[in-house]
Amino acid sequence: MSRVYCALVHHPVRARDGSTVTTAVTNLDVHDLARLARTFEVAGYFVVTPIAAQRELVERILGHWRDGGGKSRIPERAEALSRVVVVGSLEDARARIAAEEGTPRTVATAARTTEGREPTPYGEVARMVAADGPPLLLLFGTGHGLTDEVLAGADLLLPPIAGRGDYNHLSVRAAAAITFDRLLGAGAA
Amino acid sequence: MSRVYCALVHHPVRARDGSTVTTAVTNLDVHDLARLARTFEVAGYFVVTPIAAQRELVERILGHWRDGGGKSRIPERAEALSRVVVVGSLEDARARIAAEEGTPRTVATAARTTEGREPTPYGEVARMVAADGPPLLLLFGTGHGLTDEVLAGADLLLPPIAGRGDYNHLSVRAAAAITFDRLLGAGAA
Repeated sequence: MSRVYCALVHHPVRARDGSTVTTAVTNLDVHDLARLARTFEVAGYFVVTPIAAQRELVERILGHWRDGGGKSRIPERAEALSRVVVVGSLEDARARIAAEEGTPRTVATAARTTEGREPTPYGEVARMVAADGPPLLLLFGTGHGLTDEVLAGADLLLPPIAGRGDYNHLSVRAAAAITFDRLLGAGAA
Repeated sequence: MSRVYCALVHHPVRARDGSTVTTAVTNLDVHDLARLARTFEVAGYFVVTPIAAQRELVERILGHWRDGGGKSRIPERAEALSRVVVVGSLEDARARIAAEEGTPRTVATAARTTEGREPTPYGEVARMVAADGPPLLLLFGTGHGLTDEVLAGADLLLPPIAGRGDYNHLSVRAAAAITFDRLLGAGAA
């Protein structure tokens, strides 16, 4: 198991117009990121939403897969979803990690660059993963991405994922897949 | 634009029990892979299903985004979906590419290894992408993956995506994201 955690943030995130909003949890993001987290041995996957009814919804989904009908039908899905934790805020996620492993360094991801803020290359963060340093918490934003405040408050910022042109509108599922592979993958052999 | 194409195959694919089935098209896979294809300059994305009603459904979705209400609301999504082509079979996809650019080499992806078949490393296929050879058609299977016949018939086979353990149950969306990044990405800098 790595000492890397991830958080899928539903608040605070940006809307298309730049305002701060709370997005709805989607069942598919819970599953896709859990499968990725299991594949790349991410130690824990936090689904972050301040809305209690949404947290209950995710807990119901998890219950179905961990103990209910889903588990007997697709056991490997149950295994993936076993490392999902539902929390109300990023602070809750950090506190949970701090209690178990020590205060994490937060690593923000963004599709855009931030003026005056130098991103840390993927290779450098990959070396931190391999080294015996503090745990890392990777932050992924839903909607139109993490707010400026979250980006500014993060310890590190990863560069936007570069494709072959200027288009940069990946789904958070695809962005998380590529980020995990670059930081935690066995190497593109 | 690269000379790389991709196909999301809904038939023939394997069911959990190993039998050959046709899976249903999902709206989200159309969108996620189109956004990936646009980001990585994949020349065309074929949605492959032999079911006419499913092809019509995808065409309706595409119409909404290319010319309808979706285009004015999220123009960058219209741009991504502009390179989606709906076809009835893998042979149709190959014929479409052959008519425009010459017969493609097919490159299959799989979460499992095939006995007696040596996969081609990602780096080697990446060099084919960069070289001025024939076009490449990447095949992604839905359900429980491409059938043995499709794997056997492909010109090349990529290795399963290795995470950090033995778990290998990624969504096709996540697998496609990682594959595109390994073959077409600007490099994990």
